[in-house]
Amino acid sequence: MTTPRNIKLVIGYDGSDYCGWQRQENGRSIQGEIETVLSRMTRQEIDLHGAGRTDAGVHADGMVAHFHTEARISCADFSRGLNSLLPPAIRIYQAEEVAHDFHARFSAIAKEYRYEIHLGRVHPPRQRRYTLHLTSSLDLQAIDDCLGLLQGTHDFSSFENSGTRDKTLTTGKGAVRTITMARLSRNGESGLALHFRGDGFLRNMVRNMVGTLLEVGRGKILPKDFAAILAAKERSAAGPTAPAHGLWLAQVFY
Amino acid sequence: MTTPRNIKLVIGYDGSDYCGWQRQENGRSIQGEIETVLSRMTRQEIDLHGAGRTDAGVHADGMVAHFHTEARISCADFSRGLNSLLPPAIRIYQAEEVAHDFHARFSAIAKEYRYEIHLGRVHPPRQRRYTLHLTSSLDLQAIDDCLGLLQGTHDFSSFENSGTRDKTLTTGKGAVRTITMARLSRNGESGLALHFRGDGFLRNMVRNMVGTLLEVGRGKILPKDFAAILAAKERSAAGPTAPAHGLWLAQVFY
Repeated sequence: MTTPRNIKLVIGYDGSDYCGWQRQENGRSIQGEIETVLSRMTRQEIDLHGAGRTDAGVHADGMVAHFHTEARISCADFSRGLNSLLPPAIRIYQAEEVAHDFHARFSAIAKEYRYEIHLGRVHPPRQRRYTLHLTSSLDLQAIDDCLGLLQGTHDFSSFENSGTRDKTLTTGKGAVRTITMARLSRNGESGLALHFRGDGFLRNMVRNMVGTLLEVGRGKILPKDFAAILAAKERSAAGPTAPAHGLWLAQVFY
Repeated sequence: MTTPRNIKLVIGYDGSDYCGWQRQENGRSIQGEIETVLSRMTRQEIDLHGAGRTDAGVHADGMVAHFHTEARISCADFSRGLNSLLPPAIRIYQAEEVAHDFHARFSAIAKEYRYEIHLGRVHPPRQRRYTLHLTSSLDLQAIDDCLGLLQGTHDFSSFENSGTRDKTLTTGKGAVRTITMARLSRNGESGLALHFRGDGFLRNMVRNMVGTLLEVGRGKILPKDFAAILAAKERSAAGPTAPAHGLWLAQVFY
């Protein structure tokens, strides 16, 4: 009996019309779509393991997943086959054979997310599925100050929604995570993105940080109170959860 | 009886899920969607006159249209009301009151189109509705040379599809049109756009020029033969019609 090969995929998707990454009984999921095509290609039942879950409506440029297979299909053919059989909302950017002990979730050392915002009176149709639309102007300096406060190792309970905790990279750490990068970037007059890189993210943590940072940008929360929100370790201390459709899983690091 | 006001709209849309600009018996059109909302807002039957038609799947950043109304609704309220009642795939960028003799079609002196192409092995999901995907590399210098040949006043019969001719700006000129600008631009490693500005465009003219230019880029038509294709004044001399979804009506000039 041959040892199954371990194949790593780098995946991009438009999450607008899906119930999220994770396979569900009712509803189309990214994982489910890819597993169905892989099972068809390999004539085996394939379990695809993602680096993490993304919620309904969240997108990805660089989700990573792996699966084991005994099928004698080259990585180039997996890539081509998947891209010809998957809906165009899901694309395989890369397929490569990796070591047997590689695990998309447990081997990950960091993840990067991006939250995209369109600032302007009207939301251009082309941006409507991929960016949050804000008509009010934001105090970007105040947001930037608070982004600085998020960097480092903290207990992020104030930005964690209740629900199953993803213990992936951080077992035994409770709600303590390390954010190594939190910054904003501009793209023209109306494009704004908030970028976060860290060793792990709690449930809805990026969307909760963004929702709170936007309250700072609107002047509803003062930068001086932001440190207290983080220190409170209480979800109720922070701002609302930003909508899913502005969020992008940008990259997973190994 | 008051003279009706004349309102000019600047409109953007994602044409993916529409049968085109023009109202049709069966199928959702951009014109039809806006007319329906305007009639609801004004409680009058409104005829919306566009600067031209766009085919099914073609998008716009800067379509212009006008309508007459006796309703006492401010331009700001027209803009706000339309944007709250229209689907997010259609947005009103501007509404302004114009002179009674302004006509979106007959007053136009030029139009600009943009054709967007994504060059690369994989078509990113976010680009799939808005750009043509090409995996083969293109000889951009050859395309650029031919773009130069298109500029000026020519009989563009070789790039005209059969069907009703839009005589808007050019009555009595047959298939003679003037292209004042034909150029390409890059956006990063994978973004390519072809831009055309002219006093009028024949049916499918931009898509036929692009389809032929892409054959030049692929080396299937030599730049030296391109002048002969233009001179032939025969549709059969030129290349295929490029797909609709890469085409954007960028601007209408008055």
